[in-house]
Amino acid sequence: MAEDEKKKIVLNKNDFSEWYNDVVEISGLCDKRYPIKGMNVWTPYGWKVMQFIDQIIRRECDDTDHGEVNFPLLIPKTEFQKEADHIKGFDSEVYWVTHGGLNELDVPLLLRPTSETAMYPMFSLWVRSHNDLPLKTYQIVNTFRYETKMTRAFIRVREIHFFEAHTCHASFEDAEKQIIEDCAIMDKVASELCIPYMLVKRPDWDKFAGAVYTIGVDTLMPSRRTLQLGSIHQYKENFSRPYDIKYEGSDKEFHYCHQTTYGMSERLVGAVVGVHGDDKGIILPPKLAPIQFVIIPILAKGKTEMVSEASKELLEELKGYGFRVKLDDRDVRPGSKHYDWELKGVPIRVEIGPRDIEKGSIVFKRRDLSTKAFIDRKDLKAECDKALEEVKDELKRRAEEILDDGIRDVDSLDDGVKLLKEWDGIIRTRWCGEMDCAREMEKSLDKTFLGFPLDTNGTGDLQKEDGNCMVCGRPTDTVVYLSRSY
Amino acid sequence: MAEDEKKKIVLNKNDFSEWYNDVVEISGLCDKRYPIKGMNVWTPYGWKVMQFIDQIIRRECDDTDHGEVNFPLLIPKTEFQKEADHIKGFDSEVYWVTHGGLNELDVPLLLRPTSETAMYPMFSLWVRSHNDLPLKTYQIVNTFRYETKMTRAFIRVREIHFFEAHTCHASFEDAEKQIIEDCAIMDKVASELCIPYMLVKRPDWDKFAGAVYTIGVDTLMPSRRTLQLGSIHQYKENFSRPYDIKYEGSDKEFHYCHQTTYGMSERLVGAVVGVHGDDKGIILPPKLAPIQFVIIPILAKGKTEMVSEASKELLEELKGYGFRVKLDDRDVRPGSKHYDWELKGVPIRVEIGPRDIEKGSIVFKRRDLSTKAFIDRKDLKAECDKALEEVKDELKRRAEEILDDGIRDVDSLDDGVKLLKEWDGIIRTRWCGEMDCAREMEKSLDKTFLGFPLDTNGTGDLQKEDGNCMVCGRPTDTVVYLSRSY
Repeated sequence: MAEDEKKKIVLNKNDFSEWYNDVVEISGLCDKRYPIKGMNVWTPYGWKVMQFIDQIIRRECDDTDHGEVNFPLLIPKTEFQKEADHIKGFDSEVYWVTHGGLNELDVPLLLRPTSETAMYPMFSLWVRSHNDLPLKTYQIVNTFRYETKMTRAFIRVREIHFFEAHTCHASFEDAEKQIIEDCAIMDKVASELCIPYMLVKRPDWDKFAGAVYTIGVDTLMPSRRTLQLGSIHQYKENFSRPYDIKYEGSDKEFHYCHQTTYGMSERLVGAVVGVHGDDKGIILPPKLAPIQFVIIPILAKGKTEMVSEASKELLEELKGYGFRVKLDDRDVRPGSKHYDWELKGVPIRVEIGPRDIEKGSIVFKRRDLSTKAFIDRKDLKAECDKALEEVKDELKRRAEEILDDGIRDVDSLDDGVKLLKEWDGIIRTRWCGEMDCAREMEKSLDKTFLGFPLDTNGTGDLQKEDGNCMVCGRPTDTVVYLSRSY
Repeated sequence: MAEDEKKKIVLNKNDFSEWYNDVVEISGLCDKRYPIKGMNVWTPYGWKVMQFIDQIIRRECDDTDHGEVNFPLLIPKTEFQKEADHIKGFDSEVYWVTHGGLNELDVPLLLRPTSETAMYPMFSLWVRSHNDLPLKTYQIVNTFRYETKMTRAFIRVREIHFFEAHTCHASFEDAEKQIIEDCAIMDKVASELCIPYMLVKRPDWDKFAGAVYTIGVDTLMPSRRTLQLGSIHQYKENFSRPYDIKYEGSDKEFHYCHQTTYGMSERLVGAVVGVHGDDKGIILPPKLAPIQFVIIPILAKGKTEMVSEASKELLEELKGYGFRVKLDDRDVRPGSKHYDWELKGVPIRVEIGPRDIEKGSIVFKRRDLSTKAFIDRKDLKAECDKALEEVKDELKRRAEEILDDGIRDVDSLDDGVKLLKEWDGIIRTRWCGEMDCAREMEKSLDKTFLGFPLDTNGTGDLQKEDGNCMVCGRPTDTVVYLSRSY
């Protein structure tokens, strides 16, 4: 977008939806003008942010002995159809390749919406004996959904930058341990993104096509709508049977594998934008920032050269410490520079002027709090580390506040309806397990049944709490969340 | 592939084609059993090698101020058709998406064979004034060709892991400078891969669809067939006119941009496999090796624990220096370990036994030369650096020998035909410029016209040499290459 067009846009996060749609584009994360709806262009700044997230995910997967693979994009219809529930879930959502050149293909091919049906025919060749297990793989690839709902950058798109881990195990117990490991990976990734999250087991009617159960990883956007950041699935033998993924156990018998998957996507970028940003633009957590420090020379008459020299020295010193730094020595007024880097969410602006140089100090301006601090040049490395750490902590603190403020516990339908007249967010309550009561909740509260929140102690256990079903009043200890979600 | 099946395969590089097809799979680079012909699975080892190559390319592009972007895979037929020559070149080679879910799409979409027609509608929005130029972008993505020829892993596939740089310039001269820069990037990439190459300007009838001219980057495989590793294209205004990519010059007039592109692909992996490998397996240049050093403990009775401890210490020390190292402490006989790591091309095998520990030394076994050397533990870091450097130099030296031995200068058709009865390779000769003579060369020598070799002095100038056309004998200084190519 041209500079003059950008500056006409006034960002106001109170109108979250419009703010989000504007800020993703004017901060330089993506360009939505590609001639296919829901397929956006990753511009260099946004693509770098995505790649830093990918690096974090890769690091965590490599540390837990996952092997990175890369499977073909196209899947033959014949393979896709082997698992009946799965195809039912995706039938109306996939893109079909029917022609190669001028020829009609004998077997139509589909663009992967996710890669179970691409990978599992190969897993069936790869897994022979119990020595081949666990098989832990992942890939980071483009996937496709023919979305009919309204699209939104990073959040609901038709070409999705996608992470998917697929594992095979000898037993259900081993597969369950994998799911605990997946949750631990999620925790590390979310920590770098400064995004708090909930683990919420989906109700049966909302689980992934083919899964035994699904755990959603949800966060809350400032619009008070939940956003699913990722999902973890227990398949048991649901795919290994139709795809014939068997191993010879130490008992010399053949057994079907137990399988799990774990998916995350570019929605992580959407969450970072939505949760942290403000009326000045996006705010990037230090680990994701393509530019962590931007140096702005404060020029004064007769001292231009001195400041310019000192700025370059500072740039080299910061680079030498391994920080990502940019020196903005453009010939434009300081206000314009501030606007640009605030918009792009650079965590720390470094100002250096003649008086700073004389005093041996520089100024750090924090993007998150807008506070200024004088920094002694002698302690530069330590001060930089500290400043980035403080930004990270502050972003986390605020984001946790958004989430905490966004959940209210309610005992009865009446209380819920009353509350929602003056407040919006996630309703926490209890449910007896009857479908009629679930439907009544959804209808009366005008929210959907998000599912059953897990304890945050890393055990994978569901939250339990004695009480009564919100609708029928029967005693139950099953805690449920309802929300509006993206 | 299962271990027992692998070991049945005898590698013999004299039968290059079979050797290649076997070695890519049993060394663990890819799996060709995916149910679509020409679409292979990248297994973790191969994908790591590809990613190291991608990293080298990214480093070079970032250092030359290219921005990395990521464009949608799908291109509307309407955009694709804007440049007439281009679509003619690809018409019969693209995959068509005709349906989204159960609906037929209004406008069919194609899977990018390359991204001119995806990018240029956006470039037309991005480029406004001369201040926006040069625009230098690249992406590393999957591209697709509906190949009808025989496929071969990494060399001729239907889903291609592809690098493509696209640039816009204010003038033809600037665009020409870009092409010189592209050649310099190629040189750095090839150096890390230890692959020598030729820059060969293609004849007009073999240039890229839509290009003004094309420079092919070719290497020679031990089969004496050339392999195009990359290509660099000068478009002038051929695309900027139909896609309306204009800038306002300092003269306040609008001008069409001059454009260039530069492509490389997973063929780089194919070249590394083909050029360096031997009857024991592949040999990886140090920069591409997922494992640079593999430690094999030599166990002896009563000293098992000592050796095991020392091996672990060595592992940690080498990791600490930043090397990629693996300790193979499997309970299998040494011969089996040697077989595995030679097959996978690990540059250096490190052996450590009780006597080595006593003497404070270890043994380096080089994969390329099979030589052994005793290394003083005290100089470990320096010795490791040196050993990797030596492997790199030796791989380069050998590869250059293959290329040098594979080109012969010939003056006349008769000499050429005679030579080819006892020798095969690239024929270097002179050509008058007449199509009839070119056709006659191709027919008599049973080779194709590769093109006009460039001087290797980085100027982009063609090699010139006084002589006579090989066919008609007319005087000419135009040097040409003919070869069989992949």
